[in-house]
Amino acid sequence: MLIKNASLIITPSEVKKNQSILIEGNIIKKIGPSKGMDKTDEVIDASGFLVMPGLINAHTHLAMTLFRGYEDNLPLQKWLEKIFPVEDRLTEKHVYWGSMLGCLEMIKSGTTCFNDMYYFMDEVAKSVGKTGIRGCLTRAISSKGNWKKRLKTMTEKIKNIKNSSRIEWILGPHAIYTCSEELLVRIKELADNYNKKIHIHVSETEKELKDCLREHGKRPVEYLDDIGLMSNRTIAAHCCWLNDKEMDILSKRGVSVVHNPVSNMKLAAGIAPVVKMLEKSINVSLGTDGAASNNNLDMFEEMKTASLLQKISMKNSLALDAKTCLKMATINGAKALGINSGVIESGKKADLILINLKSPNLKPMHNPYSTIVYSCHGENVDTTIVDGKVLMKNRKTSLDEEKIYEKIEDCKAELF
Amino acid sequence: MLIKNASLIITPSEVKKNQSILIEGNIIKKIGPSKGMDKTDEVIDASGFLVMPGLINAHTHLAMTLFRGYEDNLPLQKWLEKIFPVEDRLTEKHVYWGSMLGCLEMIKSGTTCFNDMYYFMDEVAKSVGKTGIRGCLTRAISSKGNWKKRLKTMTEKIKNIKNSSRIEWILGPHAIYTCSEELLVRIKELADNYNKKIHIHVSETEKELKDCLREHGKRPVEYLDDIGLMSNRTIAAHCCWLNDKEMDILSKRGVSVVHNPVSNMKLAAGIAPVVKMLEKSINVSLGTDGAASNNNLDMFEEMKTASLLQKISMKNSLALDAKTCLKMATINGAKALGINSGVIESGKKADLILINLKSPNLKPMHNPYSTIVYSCHGENVDTTIVDGKVLMKNRKTSLDEEKIYEKIEDCKAELF
Repeated sequence: MLIKNASLIITPSEVKKNQSILIEGNIIKKIGPSKGMDKTDEVIDASGFLVMPGLINAHTHLAMTLFRGYEDNLPLQKWLEKIFPVEDRLTEKHVYWGSMLGCLEMIKSGTTCFNDMYYFMDEVAKSVGKTGIRGCLTRAISSKGNWKKRLKTMTEKIKNIKNSSRIEWILGPHAIYTCSEELLVRIKELADNYNKKIHIHVSETEKELKDCLREHGKRPVEYLDDIGLMSNRTIAAHCCWLNDKEMDILSKRGVSVVHNPVSNMKLAAGIAPVVKMLEKSINVSLGTDGAASNNNLDMFEEMKTASLLQKISMKNSLALDAKTCLKMATINGAKALGINSGVIESGKKADLILINLKSPNLKPMHNPYSTIVYSCHGENVDTTIVDGKVLMKNRKTSLDEEKIYEKIEDCKAELF
Repeated sequence: MLIKNASLIITPSEVKKNQSILIEGNIIKKIGPSKGMDKTDEVIDASGFLVMPGLINAHTHLAMTLFRGYEDNLPLQKWLEKIFPVEDRLTEKHVYWGSMLGCLEMIKSGTTCFNDMYYFMDEVAKSVGKTGIRGCLTRAISSKGNWKKRLKTMTEKIKNIKNSSRIEWILGPHAIYTCSEELLVRIKELADNYNKKIHIHVSETEKELKDCLREHGKRPVEYLDDIGLMSNRTIAAHCCWLNDKEMDILSKRGVSVVHNPVSNMKLAAGIAPVVKMLEKSINVSLGTDGAASNNNLDMFEEMKTASLLQKISMKNSLALDAKTCLKMATINGAKALGINSGVIESGKKADLILINLKSPNLKPMHNPYSTIVYSCHGENVDTTIVDGKVLMKNRKTSLDEEKIYEKIEDCKAELF
């Protein structure tokens, strides 16, 4: 496939004008002048478009699209008390359609890869297979109920499951306050044995920090480090309540952090010290969290909110500039998930999006990074390409969108 | 005009299902079952749509769309030093096309009325006339240069100018730090004599507060009150740095405040005490500020950001709920500007928008207020109606969008 005459090609490190991108299979082969790259079947004319790496949503609970806006003006505890009984009623079918809706929303807003932690993950995998997006999938595990049996099932699965070209299976202990130390250690061993990443919630709320201090006499990151869970295969979502010592641990161990500014603000969870973490060379990526606490999956909005939140909380209008936000939403996300993408370079996976610049909110363009982060919405994305395949063009997908909406209404009627 | 079979009609106070809206001329005549309302020329089928009042952007500098993203990662003072020389080069033509772009962007994102403070306001008026949007227009005035001459010109203008059905002319002393006390008092007298509203920046930054304390021995709102500028005809933009006494003054005088959360965060200006102001019965509306410090004019984003900012800064996830945000962006804005709109009721001006609910980010809908404020973007607006006229339908306007984009490129080439 040839993406021809792209007016602008943007990656966090460089801006190229009027070049073309040759894709072979699922890999970016070459970037340069169109000449000599013409002999391909599929040509996308990208004149008038900005081409950039697809966005990577490094922390979400995809099927929670079903809960979007459900009772979301309650105190956290009461809200969870409303959510949990409905989650208990979820079946495979609900998770499948909730995930299909989430995949559709992500494709339509320029996200090409996501990192999911939920239940009935085979259904999430089916939705990834069907829609063509890329995903890291994790079955959330906690010490609730018969966890030893669940861990055994999980171990069998991890032993036998094959990653496909678009699906990576990883491990997901939910959090320190839902998992016993024994379970955490067992998961760590499993991850070590099978070289798997670990996706876990860390220090989302002040309550989590205080409970940890009371129970373990140390802070969450210290506790997790002491039992061996902090490594360069760890993806720590949130990290709102960190002190310097914890940041040093994260940095030293090479842990990737996922910042979720919209969710953190909406739930009043806390403000992650993103600028400080980046100064300490921690790999900070970006996520939307579940749609239940966001309430959409738009990574453009997430980049903007990340920047605004650091600026106001640090009282510094220079904090977290646009380029850094784009980096967090692309190459940092790719690094967190261990995906060979997030940048437009030869040899990288062909996960790209085209922004339609003929939109009033994107005019004029003085600085493309500023345009992308501060002016753009997911709806400005015209074309989404994942793994070398066009999933959306001219804002049209090949998915049966009407059917997804109908099924979502059915799920809603059944569940709520 | 008949808006038929609207799936949902939302105003801040009520939700109606499957009703129709009859518009006669520029006024909403009737809301109810479609039967008996059929004899109209123009019928819009609103099944599958959510109908809501058009959003009111109560503080902006419209032609600053030209500066969108220009050098926006500089410290405030250095940024202004970049902006000012370009502003000095602005001519009528630049302001006209910058305003045309702004009007187009607002129409395409569901804003039906805006409150503008800038220069060459006849050009802004032309853009309002041409595009069909509604505007309150103010020539910014300061004590710089020959202000007495400018005040005289302004006085002549205010004496003779007629408001049209869509344009309201008001007065705009820029701020206490750019206007002498004498000028402020003269503007106040002019406003009193001609029963005009006054649009002014108040307490945007801590510097403004500190300078005022040093210079006048009192805080900005106290100072303005002492010289008679705080009345129910005053529209005070920003108000980030208020104490209780100042809020009591604003409340007692019936001043309308405009909150600009995105701009305040982006410039790290401060966090307005919105919840407290509302508790004190102050009319708080919502604005985007200029695109130079936002960097778009999307009032949906502004509503969401307003809510998120209060929640995180008050450490309370219940702060500033969705319904209140919608109120701020509609009826509170209408009250601030003295416009008979902001709600869908018979007798009100027909400023309405239709949201296309067939969009993945809006599915499912558990609570329409939550959907509007937390999930929606301006691009989800399908139809925009101002003063009884359809300005956009199926996301198509009758404006020559290509021409606007070309002219904006010309302006950019000339100015920067």
